[in-house]
Amino acid sequence: MTRRGTYAVGRARREQILDVATAKFATQGYSRTSMARIARDVGLTGPGLTHHFPTKTHLLVAVAERRFDLINEWAATTEGDPLRQMVRMAHMFAAQPGLIELFVLVSAEAADPTSAAHSLYVDRYERVVAALVASFRHGVESGHLRADVDYEAVARECIAVADGLQLQWVITGGTIDLPALIRGHLERLAPAILTSGETPDLAPVSEWGRE
Amino acid sequence: MTRRGTYAVGRARREQILDVATAKFATQGYSRTSMARIARDVGLTGPGLTHHFPTKTHLLVAVAERRFDLINEWAATTEGDPLRQMVRMAHMFAAQPGLIELFVLVSAEAADPTSAAHSLYVDRYERVVAALVASFRHGVESGHLRADVDYEAVARECIAVADGLQLQWVITGGTIDLPALIRGHLERLAPAILTSGETPDLAPVSEWGRE
Repeated sequence: MTRRGTYAVGRARREQILDVATAKFATQGYSRTSMARIARDVGLTGPGLTHHFPTKTHLLVAVAERRFDLINEWAATTEGDPLRQMVRMAHMFAAQPGLIELFVLVSAEAADPTSAAHSLYVDRYERVVAALVASFRHGVESGHLRADVDYEAVARECIAVADGLQLQWVITGGTIDLPALIRGHLERLAPAILTSGETPDLAPVSEWGRE
Repeated sequence: MTRRGTYAVGRARREQILDVATAKFATQGYSRTSMARIARDVGLTGPGLTHHFPTKTHLLVAVAERRFDLINEWAATTEGDPLRQMVRMAHMFAAQPGLIELFVLVSAEAADPTSAAHSLYVDRYERVVAALVASFRHGVESGHLRADVDYEAVARECIAVADGLQLQWVITGGTIDLPALIRGHLERLAPAILTSGETPDLAPVSEWGRE
């Protein structure tokens, strides 16, 4: 096999492991999923799996990384009102409860400056804050959003609400209505940033005023 | 020594260990503080310390528990506008940066339903949500706050902002202005809940309109 061929096979195997791990973490939860089980489901031996991911923490960080990439891609390609985008994202989160638990776990890893999760989170937050601020700026340019608002502060607030409510979701055993709470926050926030000063109905249907 | 005497000594020793651990975690951070160092500072042997707290995680949860108790006590005895209370609490958090890192770490422990941190958090969130809702209800009774608001949702939003921003504070290495961001959120929230519909200046000076 050529060097390039080996590399491609290694990459494909890595993606396959991440698919299986994501599905297991999402349905059974991180703590109840063993490395041995993931190895078996991928069709690898223990050492075969640890060749790609030395520890379960490495796997946790890689799964989280891929999830953040997907969210960023999705946010970059989705057009329209950032408030409605965030409501849709909340529904996406609620549909994958196991990944909410995973997010809370990676957050703690990220608090340790020496961990791989830390640099992942530094990068993630910079990108997400920047993407949200850009989205708000479009709203300012199109005249829907006020120009005299600190949108970096608003972006950090929106991300904090999403992160903090995911923590509460885990703590309450999934009994709070995550999308409804995120939507409530955005509806209370809206009059402070919309040029109309109105409270919009952010039920996930349509964009801006284009009903 | 009588049984009661032994018990009192044990409790005092426990409090002393928690004092030392809190100070170490707050100044050096959790990951850079060893059990050996805490034992030495308290004047105990290793086994003497593990008799009270078998692992560093036990100590982490106990320190977090005491911090939550202090916050709850403080919130219960502080009178006045809940929005200004929360701004003052943000300043209190910012003054103890090591305890912010600790909070993020305990949050992840709490995501595991079998951990001691989990039941601590379940209890903590129930009490904090209830205390905040009660505080908002006082505002409704005194006529300052609107009656037609879902204050449990607002309380969860405020707690999520505080928790989520503490995570961002840790990720950014303490470079975001935590009190200013929390104040910004509350000033944007205020018009949606104040009967006056106004945006108050929540700089920490005085209560309600009693300037």
